[in-house]
Amino acid sequence: MLYFEDIQVGDSQASTEEYELTADEIIDFCTQWDPQPFHVDEEVAAATSVGKLFTSALHSMAVAMRMGVKEPSATVMGLGWDEVRFETPACVGDRLRLRGEIIETRLSKSQAGLGIVRTQLYLTNQRGDTVIRFKAAALIRQRPRES
Amino acid sequence: MLYFEDIQVGDSQASTEEYELTADEIIDFCTQWDPQPFHVDEEVAAATSVGKLFTSALHSMAVAMRMGVKEPSATVMGLGWDEVRFETPACVGDRLRLRGEIIETRLSKSQAGLGIVRTQLYLTNQRGDTVIRFKAAALIRQRPRES
Repeated sequence: MLYFEDIQVGDSQASTEEYELTADEIIDFCTQWDPQPFHVDEEVAAATSVGKLFTSALHSMAVAMRMGVKEPSATVMGLGWDEVRFETPACVGDRLRLRGEIIETRLSKSQAGLGIVRTQLYLTNQRGDTVIRFKAAALIRQRPRES
Repeated sequence: MLYFEDIQVGDSQASTEEYELTADEIIDFCTQWDPQPFHVDEEVAAATSVGKLFTSALHSMAVAMRMGVKEPSATVMGLGWDEVRFETPACVGDRLRLRGEIIETRLSKSQAGLGIVRTQLYLTNQRGDTVIRFKAAALIRQRPRES
């Protein structure tokens, strides 16, 4: 279990696995959550400047969160995301990876025993292009004191 | 179809429907995308300060996007989100609504025929608490000129 004290600015981590986007998954996800024609219809997508099926930014964020939840940490809750930028469409067949770096750690001013950790994250494709980048903030417990 | 010219700062819209969160949907969504113990196990959730099953912020964003895609607009692509804040946990049984207000419209400097529209969005629960608030930016086509 990673506690607040175990996390330092500059710590970085990258996924070793890739997450491959299939047409079925793109169409299923976007039909349910973001049914824009170019996310659920391969012919409509082919006629856009992207030229093939590409998924919702929400789906890319879902892949990023899934790849990010690997090591159990003493997370109490997420606080928010900042500067979420959709840089390159994530397309059918793309193989996605996540990397992240801790950019800030500080103790909570209002809640004893808790700290705030901010991370800069990048979801990239198999060519190294950034699909999505964003900053995430979370509330993390301090290590319990031995009594 | 709503084009860039049809959208003005101050325009606002609120969902008339509610979206009710069920335990099955929370557990299914979070098992796939954000499998933290307090999102997928009702007993673990009951022992947190929230006191009952609550969903991932990603799921709340998914509900917001789904409720937001009602009126077809000439959207080319989303550009990003800013100041995404997770203010109140979204819990089993909550009934969610979305409202939004246009906060900025401007023509693209680099791409003719396109404009950028920014919206402030709020996903709220049945008590009027804000679950998530965020700003979204999108690239929207201008109305085609008649020739």
